[in-house]
Amino acid sequence: MLFVDRRDGMNYAPQGKPKPVCGPGEFPIAAVRLDHGHIYGMCNGLTEAGATIKWVYDPDEAKVAAFRRVYPGVQVARSEDEVLADADVRLVASAAVPSERANLGMRVMAAGKDYFTDKGPFTTLSQLEQVKEMVARTGRKYAVYYSERLHVESAVFAGQLIADGAIGRVVQVMGIGPHRLNAKTRPDWFFRLADYGGILCDIGSHQVEQFLYYTGAKDAQVQASKVGYHLAQYPELETFGDATLIADNGASGYFRVDWFTPDGLGTWGDGRTFILGTDGYIELRKYIDIANHPGGDHVYLVNSDGEQHLAVQGQVGFPYFGELIRDCIDRTEKAMTQAHTFKAAELCLIAQREAVRL
Amino acid sequence: MLFVDRRDGMNYAPQGKPKPVCGPGEFPIAAVRLDHGHIYGMCNGLTEAGATIKWVYDPDEAKVAAFRRVYPGVQVARSEDEVLADADVRLVASAAVPSERANLGMRVMAAGKDYFTDKGPFTTLSQLEQVKEMVARTGRKYAVYYSERLHVESAVFAGQLIADGAIGRVVQVMGIGPHRLNAKTRPDWFFRLADYGGILCDIGSHQVEQFLYYTGAKDAQVQASKVGYHLAQYPELETFGDATLIADNGASGYFRVDWFTPDGLGTWGDGRTFILGTDGYIELRKYIDIANHPGGDHVYLVNSDGEQHLAVQGQVGFPYFGELIRDCIDRTEKAMTQAHTFKAAELCLIAQREAVRL
Repeated sequence: MLFVDRRDGMNYAPQGKPKPVCGPGEFPIAAVRLDHGHIYGMCNGLTEAGATIKWVYDPDEAKVAAFRRVYPGVQVARSEDEVLADADVRLVASAAVPSERANLGMRVMAAGKDYFTDKGPFTTLSQLEQVKEMVARTGRKYAVYYSERLHVESAVFAGQLIADGAIGRVVQVMGIGPHRLNAKTRPDWFFRLADYGGILCDIGSHQVEQFLYYTGAKDAQVQASKVGYHLAQYPELETFGDATLIADNGASGYFRVDWFTPDGLGTWGDGRTFILGTDGYIELRKYIDIANHPGGDHVYLVNSDGEQHLAVQGQVGFPYFGELIRDCIDRTEKAMTQAHTFKAAELCLIAQREAVRL
Repeated sequence: MLFVDRRDGMNYAPQGKPKPVCGPGEFPIAAVRLDHGHIYGMCNGLTEAGATIKWVYDPDEAKVAAFRRVYPGVQVARSEDEVLADADVRLVASAAVPSERANLGMRVMAAGKDYFTDKGPFTTLSQLEQVKEMVARTGRKYAVYYSERLHVESAVFAGQLIADGAIGRVVQVMGIGPHRLNAKTRPDWFFRLADYGGILCDIGSHQVEQFLYYTGAKDAQVQASKVGYHLAQYPELETFGDATLIADNGASGYFRVDWFTPDGLGTWGDGRTFILGTDGYIELRKYIDIANHPGGDHVYLVNSDGEQHLAVQGQVGFPYFGELIRDCIDRTEKAMTQAHTFKAAELCLIAQREAVRL
């Protein structure tokens, strides 16, 4: 099996625990603003790689209490300022309301700390410009939790297959990112366009990041995009969106995102990624392999060697988190460059701004 | 199983033979120009539904001889004119070089016969305009073998699922149409752009037809399209193409076509169709279910009832051919309207003309 040879250099040992990349207490972090549940994925990834959560802060006491049930030893800050004033804190992880993410990041970086935000990292291009300037001025990091690649083993594995030449040169990356609406569990801001920023800059941001990563592009053009509204009771909720892109190296990208995951699907979304190369193709069935194999992280690889189904769950790990910690300590860019982080966000924001309204 | 209830009204009895829709000799046809192997699919479909092949004509004697090994009783015409002069012939089926299809169709219709051509039916918009005018003047039919829906049981079945409301209102149709290049088996015209017309108006035509059919749209706008060239030895061969469309009813379409099927795939192409609805979605794995179930025609349906895998090969049949014969006899439009046939072609030609060259 191909992937058996590909385990080295991972943050996870196969089927095992990740190896911490720093000593106990060497990388204290804080969790500030818990508006989206992704904060747990972010904190899990970082603590598994060696980070220590020192503080939690959110104005909503119920959110703080829930967080402390998961991370019992964490101190509760009385204010954001209390966290930012603590010189020990190296990085602030946050899953604020999307429209607030940039402003919080500006305050975090102004306080001399690195910032790790849930995606989408911005809701307007002017936020991006301000943050770029602050990053240039302070040298701090504005990292983004593009979880649908960084925290998905099949997605990590696909990058390794491409680097190994398993499919030749990448011709196109095509993503399908359906999500379950779960309207009753969603906060008010989820339905307000100014707060969540639009479907392309929200859940579309994962897709653009994957397109840039798998094609190896530094830049791209948004050729066309569109958004649709299908639920009259939520007039500001974009339920469908898509975009097609052209990379600076000639590769193509297309993605579709939506909030139409049916009740009968066994998980929150049938996320797929199709990576077409000159010598083969990869299909990721990231979270489910409908009516077939159990679990997620199913990689299908077809090239001159034949058709292969590689079940990689528990085999790959999530190198991003350890690399991010080391990047913050060593001031390197191994996890993800700042330029790549911003470019993915910029393209989403352009796709969103230019989208045809269906 | 859902599809057990869906067998009635089909041209095929389940697992059985199609029922002829006319008496023996009642619908004589001719096969003229055998440049593409699709002529066999076209003739098989029509003869299974009751047509009788009276004539075959091609200037290449080897092609005629091969045809007569499959259909031994067929008379060999000395010229196209001999076929067109035979008042018995109701319909001429043809798989000419794409750039010649319209001209041949004009002659067939001028001779008072219906025409059934392989896709893509045109290589220029001016051909389409001339043919439209001829159809209006003569009342003859210019039918097109959009085989990737009409001659694929899972694709036929998907239309029935949608009509039954299995996925609600169609939000988007997304198609992947990879093909194996098999360069050594291809004739010269295959590699000449002026002859084959471009990848979007050739293999892309299937995709646009499916988009219009599954969305129920009467018209659409090509929002964006592009084509790519990856094989330096074939400078006029477009190896990749895609297009995104907006239907007159608000539904979206996207498709990608390419000539990159890897040698290791068990068939000529891993054609897929994803139909997203407001209440569920359908995925067709039309010709292969990679590294999973054998055979083709695998339908995956996910809605509020759960995830279903429906293996429909041999269960659905191909109602198009019998309907086309009856349409020719009865002067109806049950198989496919002329407007739909032309609209699919028109949109491909526009996508082709407007495509960004990568």
